[in-house]
Amino acid sequence: MEEEAANLRVDGEDEDEQEHDPEQNSLHQPLLRRSPTLTSNPMAMIGAKVSHIESLDYEMYEDDLFMHDWRSRSSVQVFQYVVLKWTLAFLVGLLTGVVASLINLAIENIAGWKMLVVGELVLKERYFTGFAYFTGANLALTLVAAALCVQFAPTAAGPGIPEIKAYLNGVDTPNMFGVPTLIVKIIGSIAAVSAGLDLGKEGPLVHIASCIAYLLGQGGSDKHKLNWRWLRYVKNDRDRRDLITCGASSGVCAAFRSPVGGVLFALEEVASWWRSALLWRTFFSTAVVVVVLRAFMEYCDSGRCGLFGRGGLILFDVSGVIVRYHFMDLLPVAVIGIIGGVLGGLYNHLLHKVLRVYSIINEKGRMAKLLLSLSVSLFTSVCLYTLPFLASCSPCDPSIDAACPTTGQSGNFKQFNCPDGYYNDLASLLHATNDDAVRNIFSTSTPTEFRPLSLLIFFLLYCILGLFTFGIAVPSGLFLPIILMGSAYGRLLALAIGSFTSIDQGLYAVLGAAALMAGSMRMTVSLCVIFLELTNNLSLLPITMLVLLISKTVGDSFNPSIYEIILELKGLPFLDAKPEPWMRNLTVGDLAAAKPTLVCLQGIEKVSKVVEVLKSTLHNGFPVVDQEFPSTAGVPAATTELNGVILRAHLIAVLRKKWFLTGKRRAQDWEIRERFTSEDLAEKASNVDEIVLTEEEKEMYIDLHPFTNNTPYTVVETMSVAKALVLFRELALRHLLIVPKYQGAGISPVVGILTRQDLRAHNIMNAFPNIAKKRGEKGRNHGS
Amino acid sequence: MEEEAANLRVDGEDEDEQEHDPEQNSLHQPLLRRSPTLTSNPMAMIGAKVSHIESLDYEMYEDDLFMHDWRSRSSVQVFQYVVLKWTLAFLVGLLTGVVASLINLAIENIAGWKMLVVGELVLKERYFTGFAYFTGANLALTLVAAALCVQFAPTAAGPGIPEIKAYLNGVDTPNMFGVPTLIVKIIGSIAAVSAGLDLGKEGPLVHIASCIAYLLGQGGSDKHKLNWRWLRYVKNDRDRRDLITCGASSGVCAAFRSPVGGVLFALEEVASWWRSALLWRTFFSTAVVVVVLRAFMEYCDSGRCGLFGRGGLILFDVSGVIVRYHFMDLLPVAVIGIIGGVLGGLYNHLLHKVLRVYSIINEKGRMAKLLLSLSVSLFTSVCLYTLPFLASCSPCDPSIDAACPTTGQSGNFKQFNCPDGYYNDLASLLHATNDDAVRNIFSTSTPTEFRPLSLLIFFLLYCILGLFTFGIAVPSGLFLPIILMGSAYGRLLALAIGSFTSIDQGLYAVLGAAALMAGSMRMTVSLCVIFLELTNNLSLLPITMLVLLISKTVGDSFNPSIYEIILELKGLPFLDAKPEPWMRNLTVGDLAAAKPTLVCLQGIEKVSKVVEVLKSTLHNGFPVVDQEFPSTAGVPAATTELNGVILRAHLIAVLRKKWFLTGKRRAQDWEIRERFTSEDLAEKASNVDEIVLTEEEKEMYIDLHPFTNNTPYTVVETMSVAKALVLFRELALRHLLIVPKYQGAGISPVVGILTRQDLRAHNIMNAFPNIAKKRGEKGRNHGS
Repeated sequence: MEEEAANLRVDGEDEDEQEHDPEQNSLHQPLLRRSPTLTSNPMAMIGAKVSHIESLDYEMYEDDLFMHDWRSRSSVQVFQYVVLKWTLAFLVGLLTGVVASLINLAIENIAGWKMLVVGELVLKERYFTGFAYFTGANLALTLVAAALCVQFAPTAAGPGIPEIKAYLNGVDTPNMFGVPTLIVKIIGSIAAVSAGLDLGKEGPLVHIASCIAYLLGQGGSDKHKLNWRWLRYVKNDRDRRDLITCGASSGVCAAFRSPVGGVLFALEEVASWWRSALLWRTFFSTAVVVVVLRAFMEYCDSGRCGLFGRGGLILFDVSGVIVRYHFMDLLPVAVIGIIGGVLGGLYNHLLHKVLRVYSIINEKGRMAKLLLSLSVSLFTSVCLYTLPFLASCSPCDPSIDAACPTTGQSGNFKQFNCPDGYYNDLASLLHATNDDAVRNIFSTSTPTEFRPLSLLIFFLLYCILGLFTFGIAVPSGLFLPIILMGSAYGRLLALAIGSFTSIDQGLYAVLGAAALMAGSMRMTVSLCVIFLELTNNLSLLPITMLVLLISKTVGDSFNPSIYEIILELKGLPFLDAKPEPWMRNLTVGDLAAAKPTLVCLQGIEKVSKVVEVLKSTLHNGFPVVDQEFPSTAGVPAATTELNGVILRAHLIAVLRKKWFLTGKRRAQDWEIRERFTSEDLAEKASNVDEIVLTEEEKEMYIDLHPFTNNTPYTVVETMSVAKALVLFRELALRHLLIVPKYQGAGISPVVGILTRQDLRAHNIMNAFPNIAKKRGEKGRNHGS
Repeated sequence: MEEEAANLRVDGEDEDEQEHDPEQNSLHQPLLRRSPTLTSNPMAMIGAKVSHIESLDYEMYEDDLFMHDWRSRSSVQVFQYVVLKWTLAFLVGLLTGVVASLINLAIENIAGWKMLVVGELVLKERYFTGFAYFTGANLALTLVAAALCVQFAPTAAGPGIPEIKAYLNGVDTPNMFGVPTLIVKIIGSIAAVSAGLDLGKEGPLVHIASCIAYLLGQGGSDKHKLNWRWLRYVKNDRDRRDLITCGASSGVCAAFRSPVGGVLFALEEVASWWRSALLWRTFFSTAVVVVVLRAFMEYCDSGRCGLFGRGGLILFDVSGVIVRYHFMDLLPVAVIGIIGGVLGGLYNHLLHKVLRVYSIINEKGRMAKLLLSLSVSLFTSVCLYTLPFLASCSPCDPSIDAACPTTGQSGNFKQFNCPDGYYNDLASLLHATNDDAVRNIFSTSTPTEFRPLSLLIFFLLYCILGLFTFGIAVPSGLFLPIILMGSAYGRLLALAIGSFTSIDQGLYAVLGAAALMAGSMRMTVSLCVIFLELTNNLSLLPITMLVLLISKTVGDSFNPSIYEIILELKGLPFLDAKPEPWMRNLTVGDLAAAKPTLVCLQGIEKVSKVVEVLKSTLHNGFPVVDQEFPSTAGVPAATTELNGVILRAHLIAVLRKKWFLTGKRRAQDWEIRERFTSEDLAEKASNVDEIVLTEEEKEMYIDLHPFTNNTPYTVVETMSVAKALVLFRELALRHLLIVPKYQGAGISPVVGILTRQDLRAHNIMNAFPNIAKKRGEKGRNHGS
């Protein structure tokens, strides 16, 4: 994994060498670089392209300007802020519900129409025309999805959940939440799912909802923003984070119609920080989504939505099934869990290998990406079309209530190539949308519907498709492929056990799907609730819990969760809440010593010095230190004073406004407030090279005090890296100052400054190879 | 509220003046005390008695001994630790499930037997004998519960949830988790619920489960401990905290048979810190509870449990009801929510007043407590017995399937004093256990069962009982009284609306109960899931969410949640995650200046000095500072060095082992390891006066370095109190060092030390009255 990550990074540097990278902590001057040095390269795979990433400011920066602004906020403004936050949460839910409904509608109609025509052609025994039509339609749809992704929004490919997870951890990935991404994701997801590819709309829906939340929060796209005054209160990284959390919950809720599950998914898997207030707000968003979906289904129930009809939204409702089981049934259920864990771990392992190969292919350019997508689509179409011919026809069971055989787009017993009164069980699974396939394989009270051979073919086919479809350049979710695989093996197992169990085969399929999800994604409570809300049957709860616990435990003994693997593969600097055990043996002082020289600024600094520092370094935050502080009455003579941290963005804002002083003096409060509001400082850093200064201006001074965050979090140099990481992560910091343990004349009040990259295990181990060696002996064994 | 708290504290000081209080931060020497001074009095109401409280060490203390011990842990020991944690989680679930089953069994049989006899007497028209019997039995049962509580375990009174919440926030309340408390809580809860008092077994079950978790974690009671070697790994505050979280989840799960709801309850309401790993472990515990309860119910289904029979565990299963509603139905549902919020707020307000009056009565001694309990019992019995005679008899509706009339202990249509073929609707609610009453009032498809007058009487009666029962000296839960009140007004509202709604009356009762719970306890997601799992009907989800959101919002506009009110009333120093807005205007330097002089120790300290410091102060942690540090090559000359923090408990352990040095020198590693293991330091601090030292010993030295936590968290003196509080709370600290912003010769490396009490809004406002004044203008308006 590490070789690959390094490989990606080198390629990235070649591609983006001109781009400046403000987060980087090394001085980028090879001569200064010591070896071993703690350096970091903030490059990551965003979409299918390597680009630089930044950190987000989730910490409250308490500079004088902010504090003045904050103190002068009237109660009306505070009320506006609260109303705005709830309104935005409402809008996120509303829009997500509407968009999800429209996506469902489009997919059901496009795929349904395709299926209808193919079904008719097959019935007329025009097999080749049917094949050409089926394959052609699928290729065309795939082409639409892939071309849009490749041309307009590479970040729209894949599920987007890992990037959202990284965003909520404090890593800003460029172009993830723009308008093009949103539009491409919506259209691409419709096209890709309609094309019959083995992927779901669930992951993309989470990304779509997060995009909606992001765009709402800043009042429009980057170019065309709504400049509504109220919006200024939420234009900061903290409020944006909360909104995106609401978005992620709403997305899951819209995908599975699972409001509580959506909240828990965001809590357990996506979000890095959580507050009670947020629990409540996300819950509100998902409640809105559910109301919208319900209204939409009520509207469609009367047949006004074309082929959409009554299906579509609830994936599988088994509430009618009475579940009775005894202690003896727990054994096969435990077996499902164990197999789910093993298969999940194996799937993660193999998918990782496939993604590595794909990333090499994707590097070759746009044509390569398109061709890869089209090949996968072609392979999928050939398999889906031809495999059902291998299955023999089964006679309809008159004791079962459902229509048999059916020729329409949905229905559990597809006639396909069979005579009247017979159905093709494999066609019921393969000639359907993925949602329909899941519904069919979950169907209860139909113990003789599927034959073992058909299920086996289905299972193997979807294992192959599940591995090779995920990495192509179209919006793709992981939930559905895993559910399909899991349900197939669950139902197979039920057939194998036969009459030894009193649980319905359909429920085995549900449990299999849950087990494989837990085995691959390693969630427990949220998956449990999602499955409860999906199946609408609470009596399944205890055995679902058992299966999930077993398969997560088994899966965890093999490898990390699939999202963690993707995060690692993409090189996103995700910070885990739990420090590695060996981090206790290292102090932050060691880290500071391994970094390039610290660059400090003085409280009142020359303009030329500021410009030089900004140009020569790529740091994003600078400690501000006052030298030669005069001794006053009562306070012992001090030589230096720690003032705080100033951000690159703020320095550039000051330079751009050309707010300079002629002499080395402290500025008055009114001078600053005349020129600056805290909104001026809220913008992202632009390039320092764009600012043109005269020689005269360069000789002037800036008073940095009003812009300095006076309350930076600090650690003493003897602090262990483990505890510093906990501090950094729990408080969502961007910079952490290291202060000396000694007091005395001539000692600098700052020993170093730590950022996210400095605290990543991978980077530390590069700088301290001896720790990497020791790690093998002990590290592995200190599980939670 | 504050007057009352102050009042309690003064009383407390009179009572416990002799007791030493190691957490206190003032020097307790009135002459030294400045005014205004930031002092704190760590007294709180524990049970019905005022006693001193301590903080817990949730932070990892990285001293040399611990680090050596930690580094030398083999992988086998780590494996033991992991296995142990999971085994304990399993045992917590198992024992909680068994105890909950036995409590249910006992209550159903005692209360059922009582009801049977009374029912027969009433049928025979022996009304006075019935009354005497009913009242006598209830008084006797109440006497048992109250006498046990008053005599053996005052902490067993009440629900215990606020104290558990405080424990998980870092406040140790004495005698909360002992063996007497556990036993009294179990027996008392059985007796109190059987006595027909208006209280539930739900809150006490949470406390019982937490006691079980605590006792398992330390391997037995304080006196009779199991000294199993494996247990030493979990004998620390951190692991105990995790176990008690598992216990709280299991308790809720056992109370409502709601595994996911239990986990969410612990997450949303009880726990202050949460990790993903904990989510998983608590989920495991609750899964075990559910399996045990299921097995128990399977066993009892066959009639082997006496009167327990088929009822008892699932409170109300409305899964058979098909819920259909349209947008028009949302209006009455919203009204339920609004009324729930208003009533909930009112209930909190009135209960607070009642508890204040009760605390004055309870102060008067044991007899007063007993008499209060017995009076409440008498009043309850009189009302429950006589009120049904006011209701007229209704004819049985033959179209309803249920048995009518019934004379047994359960059943929806009680005959009571009516002729055959008729039932008494008020008796169906009042002459039943509380669980049965809830089941009856929730009953669906019985629109004509209850008459408005009966419901009104029921509602008013339980409003009065709900206010006056909670504070008496028996184990009592808040869930059930609130559910009873809420369901009554929900059903009343449904009757009032009549045929304008298409939702069943029983569901209105459920929604009313949910609304009042949210209006009083202010939980959302966990309540929602608990109600889902209780009613076993997922189609109720969207309207439940709506009701909960509305009633919580309405309730929040009146007052804080009932648990917060109780915490405040008891004076427990609970630290909220969200700082008050005015804390941004104050720095930790201001706090340090308002505190009594800081007491530091030197790295190598004279024994007499250590003893003197321990005797003269009540601090629990002391900064360790080395003076006159010699200048060495490479390091600029330093005058002082910050070494870390040492705990009172560790100092006493060293004094007790008499590990002294003859000269002022650093001890060698082997010298220490020969005498100490990190387990020696894990014990709680004992009294320093018990240690007898000779004059010779007092002239010797102690090397404090090996026992000092070298990695204390620190803040610079310019840090705002708001941000310091976030740090303190998020990292679960006990001590927070303040370091100076200046560097220079002669400056102390520590400016002050902050503890939980120093960061409480109440204490800060006492020391800075001008802030309290400003607060009225701004503070209120900065809601979340």
